[in-house]
Amino acid sequence: MSDIANLAPAYIRSIAPYQPGKPITDLARDKSLEPSQIVKLASNENPLGVSPNAHMAMMDALDEIARYPDGNSVSLRDAVCEKFNVTPSQLVFGNGSNDILELSARAFLAPGDEAVYSQHAFAVYSLVTQAVGATGVVVPAKEFGHDLDAMLLAITPKTRMVFVANPNNPTGTLISKAALKQFISLVPKSTLVILDEAYDEYLTDELKAESIGWLAEFNNLVISRTFSKAYGLAGLRVGFGVTSSAIADLMNRVRQPFNVNSIAQAAAVASLGDDEFVERTRALNQAGMVQITQGLQKLDLTYIPSFANFISFKVSDARGVYERLLNQGVIVRPIANYEMPDYLRVSIGLFSENARFLEALDQAIKA
Amino acid sequence: MSDIANLAPAYIRSIAPYQPGKPITDLARDKSLEPSQIVKLASNENPLGVSPNAHMAMMDALDEIARYPDGNSVSLRDAVCEKFNVTPSQLVFGNGSNDILELSARAFLAPGDEAVYSQHAFAVYSLVTQAVGATGVVVPAKEFGHDLDAMLLAITPKTRMVFVANPNNPTGTLISKAALKQFISLVPKSTLVILDEAYDEYLTDELKAESIGWLAEFNNLVISRTFSKAYGLAGLRVGFGVTSSAIADLMNRVRQPFNVNSIAQAAAVASLGDDEFVERTRALNQAGMVQITQGLQKLDLTYIPSFANFISFKVSDARGVYERLLNQGVIVRPIANYEMPDYLRVSIGLFSENARFLEALDQAIKA
Repeated sequence: MSDIANLAPAYIRSIAPYQPGKPITDLARDKSLEPSQIVKLASNENPLGVSPNAHMAMMDALDEIARYPDGNSVSLRDAVCEKFNVTPSQLVFGNGSNDILELSARAFLAPGDEAVYSQHAFAVYSLVTQAVGATGVVVPAKEFGHDLDAMLLAITPKTRMVFVANPNNPTGTLISKAALKQFISLVPKSTLVILDEAYDEYLTDELKAESIGWLAEFNNLVISRTFSKAYGLAGLRVGFGVTSSAIADLMNRVRQPFNVNSIAQAAAVASLGDDEFVERTRALNQAGMVQITQGLQKLDLTYIPSFANFISFKVSDARGVYERLLNQGVIVRPIANYEMPDYLRVSIGLFSENARFLEALDQAIKA
Repeated sequence: MSDIANLAPAYIRSIAPYQPGKPITDLARDKSLEPSQIVKLASNENPLGVSPNAHMAMMDALDEIARYPDGNSVSLRDAVCEKFNVTPSQLVFGNGSNDILELSARAFLAPGDEAVYSQHAFAVYSLVTQAVGATGVVVPAKEFGHDLDAMLLAITPKTRMVFVANPNNPTGTLISKAALKQFISLVPKSTLVILDEAYDEYLTDELKAESIGWLAEFNNLVISRTFSKAYGLAGLRVGFGVTSSAIADLMNRVRQPFNVNSIAQAAAVASLGDDEFVERTRALNQAGMVQITQGLQKLDLTYIPSFANFISFKVSDARGVYERLLNQGVIVRPIANYEMPDYLRVSIGLFSENARFLEALDQAIKA
């Protein structure tokens, strides 16, 4: 590293970047495959694409693309308020929900502060904590899920923030509403709870989060939601946080003025109006989850029962199986960086994609 | 503010958010006007829109919008390397060049560090400095431009970063290449120079920046470029930084993994291939600049000669003139927040928009 790079804070210099799923174009190039031959089940994307309403809205929005976006996301704000019964001042919009996680860290964590999160939880929690020079405290998981009792015990006067993912990625585990609410009530009022509900839309009505209704009770709660999963807008980058007006105000101060692009705003508004698409997405996922779990059982593989749109399963030689799947044009996600070196994560795709994955897996584990 | 909000660092609580140009939809609502009746010359946007090539690329990219973007922007990286003759490792891509400015601050500034910038310089320099708890040092301007000698004198051992905008927004002033290169050579090697060239494409060939060629000589230089101005992609959010590989590596560590959306990447690649569009943009701007400066002269108004796609002019009662322009459906930009309370900034538009602005201004200053 050059002299100038050595002047960056040590906590910056020691960050290990995020490892994304392998893009289809990369694999096509590496293995000389046609992109259409490749099945990518590596990034928990929506195999149905986007709502037709969103597609129309995106096309329309292209006409005004030389204009800056609305920095206040007024139309989207109104749509979210109506859908989730919250007030405009409670909202923060992000360049994906990754941005929401980062904004919460940047607004509330400083060097010397601590943030608590679970082992096997989403990698971005540790990235955003480290990038502001705060200290991440990892609490060992319990049966691959959050050990809420241990997480409470890990909170010290220095803990400014605790991250909870529900359902969690990459394990797919779910905390019950009662246990979660009790946990939040026991977190000190001086510690923010960042509740990441990126996969909530995949839950049945009975299991779906009710946390937005808890905001009246807890003023240290930030709920993060995304349009990248069930709404199918991953490529556009849009998510939002719902919290108290005071916290939203601070997060908005560190937000880039035009952090959410125009196409994303238009597509998100249209997506919120298409419940049928989300329901179709959920139903397809439920059927695909049955298909894949049955397939894994047939192959005598262990998996972690999942409440989201992916499932993590155990194999001997996960790296080898991953590579042998790639050779067959199937991309899944190695999760050794989540301290799960014996597991691979597969996203639930279309029926044909799931079938293709299971066939390729059969070959890959025999090899 | 609630108790929890008081726990955010003091430097976060004291940030005053960025003030964007008034959106057309806001004015239409406020004054019951049709959006088509409104002329917005407030945000230095491209009145020609985007390259037709970019429009086609955006339409194509919509088909894959449920996929995450390429986190490494490989195609765009290749296109920028070819166009600017740099190597892939020297590049950082941002959600607009605002993101590049912020990433440089987040990678290199910590509480206690100082950043130097000029009075009347782009508001985001102070925002990104304050958001990481560093101290901004504002150097008084000289004839509305950067006083480079005074800026050198303002650098102390605590100065980790100096921001230079060339041309500068909102004053339109330009530093000569010789003066700029000498300045960079005199900045201590332990201080980064962030050179913001958002408006470079509006310069004549003779005046255009050569700073990318200086990177071999200076390893403390970061050049920031945007697709929001001459390329007309403001609504999509894409910009990039060019620097040494070591600095780019650090900035990439604090970058969100998917900070640049797919549509922006596709549109930017296509835009780089359409020099004719950029040239048409520059020529239109040059003609419009003549049209507006002649109009301002006729109205006996003082203005700051500008090298960019906007011009700032002096009026008595700038706030009143701004409001009276709004009443006539014309949006310009008050710049009191740039310590220029007697000035308004107008972006150069189409011939008809410029004419409409000048007529409305004539009315507004007489009222």
